[in-house]
Amino acid sequence: MKTVVTISELRSARLELAEPVGLVPTMGYLHEGHLSLAKRAREECASVVATIFINPTQFAPEEDLDSYPRDLDKDLALLEEVGVDLVWMPTPEVMYPENYQTWVTVDELTHVLEGTSRPTHFQGVTTVVAKLFNGVLPQKTYFGQKDAQQVVVIQRMLQDLNFPIEIVVCPIVREPDGLAMSSRNYYLNPEQRQAATVLYRALTAAKEAFEAGEQQAEKLRAIVTNKVNAESLAELEYISCAHPETLIELEGAIEGALLSMAVCVGKTRLIDNIFVGK
Amino acid sequence: MKTVVTISELRSARLELAEPVGLVPTMGYLHEGHLSLAKRAREECASVVATIFINPTQFAPEEDLDSYPRDLDKDLALLEEVGVDLVWMPTPEVMYPENYQTWVTVDELTHVLEGTSRPTHFQGVTTVVAKLFNGVLPQKTYFGQKDAQQVVVIQRMLQDLNFPIEIVVCPIVREPDGLAMSSRNYYLNPEQRQAATVLYRALTAAKEAFEAGEQQAEKLRAIVTNKVNAESLAELEYISCAHPETLIELEGAIEGALLSMAVCVGKTRLIDNIFVGK
Repeated sequence: MKTVVTISELRSARLELAEPVGLVPTMGYLHEGHLSLAKRAREECASVVATIFINPTQFAPEEDLDSYPRDLDKDLALLEEVGVDLVWMPTPEVMYPENYQTWVTVDELTHVLEGTSRPTHFQGVTTVVAKLFNGVLPQKTYFGQKDAQQVVVIQRMLQDLNFPIEIVVCPIVREPDGLAMSSRNYYLNPEQRQAATVLYRALTAAKEAFEAGEQQAEKLRAIVTNKVNAESLAELEYISCAHPETLIELEGAIEGALLSMAVCVGKTRLIDNIFVGK
Repeated sequence: MKTVVTISELRSARLELAEPVGLVPTMGYLHEGHLSLAKRAREECASVVATIFINPTQFAPEEDLDSYPRDLDKDLALLEEVGVDLVWMPTPEVMYPENYQTWVTVDELTHVLEGTSRPTHFQGVTTVVAKLFNGVLPQKTYFGQKDAQQVVVIQRMLQDLNFPIEIVVCPIVREPDGLAMSSRNYYLNPEQRQAATVLYRALTAAKEAFEAGEQQAEKLRAIVTNKVNAESLAELEYISCAHPETLIELEGAIEGALLSMAVCVGKTRLIDNIFVGK
């Protein structure tokens, strides 16, 4: 497994890779969710490139950029183990040199859900992902369903800007008790860690209600809200029952939806989601 | 010479092209300036792709989108004559389908000069050019120095977003009397056409003054202003004496600069530019 930092090192290394190339973008501190993306890429592509970059432009000033967990040695060992060929680990100066001033934005889809409380987040994501795409030039790229809105936004950017890249969305990987894997779970103390199971418990309760015949979007949101409110360490930021592609909030009887939510457990903000119906 | 409209037609046709591919983006109504780009691409690349697309998003509502001149049959004949291999002529619906919502923006460089009177123009340009790049996937792309700020902005976008594409900037092609070739010259009546020569006359006067020892940026701008004011049919919108890469306006003694200007002749807005010094 080769590692590179600069664009020119990346370009040289890219020339050596067999096609097709699969790209797995990460911010490091890898868990089984990330590794499931890399394994899927390994199965489907002749070469696998992973990137490790904690992208400053997707963090707001008050967010956890400085404290975001890091363990590069372990990350590299894990990526080597699953058979990644090349790791691009740009520095912030490589990605955002002096006079940097170009941004990729997706409009409507980023103004809801995560975008409401994190208004600059997705511009950082779409910009850095466009840069990763143009740097690595993959045929396929692998993203986790955990960040449901990110997936929808990246798909929109890919289509709108004519990127010749297929996105493969991999299922959420969960702990045995249902908590979605996330680098931010690292922040939780044992009591909070237990409380954090409420996200999946609440989503599952709503899904079960839907499957038992409850079709009202308002009721499904209420089921989740009530579950989270019953957990004293958890504070619900939002629960959405939305169209899976437009992310427009649904009302009344639904045939299917993306249920997604953000919850604060202590100072740690966690997200999760589940599909119901078709 | 092949012509295509949709993205999927383009993708298929692109697979047949020998590498490297040179891209010449145009809005049609081709003149010798455009053809100089295509000829240069023909010399330097195994395959040449031209695009013809009057990009609605780079026109403000009050601008000349509807009246912009068109002559597709002639354009195709000219491109065939210079040896272009493939012409992509997307419709507005191909480029901006329903739910389109992704934009590429370059910040500081687009807030001056043309950006002052055309605040949405460059977002339209950078977005469509990013789409053309991702559609055609060229190794080189050819732009005219006539649109000096556009060249600087596109270079910035290419570098910032890691596009693996080299930009080749071709000199301004002028009529025998010095008027820079432009599809918009078509709008000029004979009297206006004569008055329009003032742009190049004014820039040349400033360049000659610089070469004769006048180094003050303010004086060079004044020379251009006075020349244009002496032409009753012409109204100066701006004259800039700026750093060629940052486009920051210069003051005092200079070693070199990009002199650029916009002038209205009747309702027709014309631009021109010249380099002085190093």
